[in-house]
Amino acid sequence: MNHHDTGAADPASADALAEQTAEAMFRRDAASHLLGLRVIAVRPGYARVAMVVGAEMANSHRICHGGILFTLADSAFAYACNSYNKNTVASACQIDFLAPAQIGERLEAECEERSLTGRTGVYDTTIRDASGKVIALFRGKSYRVTGEVIAALEADGSA
Amino acid sequence: MNHHDTGAADPASADALAEQTAEAMFRRDAASHLLGLRVIAVRPGYARVAMVVGAEMANSHRICHGGILFTLADSAFAYACNSYNKNTVASACQIDFLAPAQIGERLEAECEERSLTGRTGVYDTTIRDASGKVIALFRGKSYRVTGEVIAALEADGSA
Amino acid sequence: MNHHDTGAADPASADALAEQTAEAMFRRDAASHLLGLRVIAVRPGYARVAMVVGAEMANSHRICHGGILFTLADSAFAYACNSYNKNTVASACQIDFLAPAQIGERLEAECEERSLTGRTGVYDTTIRDASGKVIALFRGKSYRVTGEVIAALEADGSA
Amino acid sequence: MNHHDTGAADPASADALAEQTAEAMFRRDAASHLLGLRVIAVRPGYARVAMVVGAEMANSHRICHGGILFTLADSAFAYACNSYNKNTVASACQIDFLAPAQIGERLEAECEERSLTGRTGVYDTTIRDASGKVIALFRGKSYRVTGEVIAALEADGSA
Repeated sequence: MNHHDTGAADPASADALAEQTAEAMFRRDAASHLLGLRVIAVRPGYARVAMVVGAEMANSHRICHGGILFTLADSAFAYACNSYNKNTVASACQIDFLAPAQIGERLEAECEERSLTGRTGVYDTTIRDASGKVIALFRGKSYRVTGEVIAALEADGSA
Repeated sequence: MNHHDTGAADPASADALAEQTAEAMFRRDAASHLLGLRVIAVRPGYARVAMVVGAEMANSHRICHGGILFTLADSAFAYACNSYNKNTVASACQIDFLAPAQIGERLEAECEERSLTGRTGVYDTTIRDASGKVIALFRGKSYRVTGEVIAALEADGSA
Repeated sequence: MNHHDTGAADPASADALAEQTAEAMFRRDAASHLLGLRVIAVRPGYARVAMVVGAEMANSHRICHGGILFTLADSAFAYACNSYNKNTVASACQIDFLAPAQIGERLEAECEERSLTGRTGVYDTTIRDASGKVIALFRGKSYRVTGEVIAALEADGSA
Repeated sequence: MNHHDTGAADPASADALAEQTAEAMFRRDAASHLLGLRVIAVRPGYARVAMVVGAEMANSHRICHGGILFTLADSAFAYACNSYNKNTVASACQIDFLAPAQIGERLEAECEERSLTGRTGVYDTTIRDASGKVIALFRGKSYRVTGEVIAALEADGSA
């Protein structure tokens, strides 16, 4: 993993900033709440997010809908690529579905930074089930836009 | 578009089979209901699905979560690639996010078959807003497994 | 296909500009010459490029190396996305290999623009053999950088 | 990295099998010779391949053609996914171009296995320049077909 220079004075404050950013994002992230996502860990360029597959997330084959798996992976990606408190959006994502996820299973999505150059980053998310089996591999490309995450969310909140 | 030989006696019956398959799938597709998806049209190798962006689908930037856009595109893909009544799953998908989708907007995802050889197909889905602007481009790869869609869903229902 | 407004006075001059740009690029494109590529047609947002699979392009399975197929598709993409005479580079590409290409076969790569918004475009290339069978499907994402293609190549040539 | 059970009696013999397979492949891989590729290291599920960017590999911008970078990454992927001496082909690949590679530069492509389940694998290749800068990130999906690599190449050679 390729930890980016955040300009933070020290690793501890970079970690604290990542956590504060994730908390500010999570409060406002309706889709995360819709799916019952939980942010387990976040550091600069890194995030781990958990979800239990609910019956309402199934497709017609009675397994977790691929779009829900994507949303889980994409959410871990969002927390990881915004962890420097710089507003960052996804420009493209790719997912390989390797094994089905059953209703009731607890899944974890772990996202790691592979590259960050200028405004563009590449992040890999792995979704595993409770036994450690890989359910899906996801790669996302990020683009940093203007503004800071926490300041923007607070400004929006006071409106 | 590359319409596959379905073995159906004539185009009208192939269209009818595609519609019956979509109806059987939709009844059981909990994730489609969670997001309020509507199947607008389905033909062999083709599907069009609509969704209105609800407030509960927003991310922390107050725009539609990328995972929800993916789920919409992936659902159109699922209806298109299962339209021959052969059980078919997604093996990999790729999405490019081109413009944000706002809360309250009505989106349509149109999926077309690009290739179908043996068990493997490639399908392209375009998501547009009401003005016709392209919101996202999605490409999915499908793999046909054993069994028929309608028979499998009915067997599951009677269990 | 989604032809972009090029600002050209009329379609005929947009077509002529596309052809002049392709000619200027081709003269300098060593990799195109290494593989014996031929530009068959070019228009705004569109290009068609042909190649005969040489024995030196084979992999250890005695079929055309996937990297050579990619290079063919990517070259059609380059001619299409630079056809407005604005310097444009590839930021990411994805390819699905659907059928092997044999030594001696003549292949054509046809590239069409799917979207062009601001500096970012999405282009689809299809590689077919002489019988029309699809060998590979390619999707490329482009990013426009500063400068014009013809002026830059001429400046480079006079150095 | 997720080393697959190869059925080899011990790690040393699995490593030896990977090396023998790579040697047999390399002798027959014309495209590798066309680009002057060198296999630096190979182990089960892993390969490292080097290339110097020649003037004949440039595009019209005088930097290494994206197709050549893809071919380098794809070749490392081929050696890694065939390292168990089971005939394996690429079904789809994706590449992100992060920085240009100049003529004369020595590049290394390092490929690692991310997943291997049944016949399907996912492999990540990173291309770096001599300073360690990441030039491109590549992800390939493999599919195991029938037959063994070394036996097939020897049979082909004796024909």
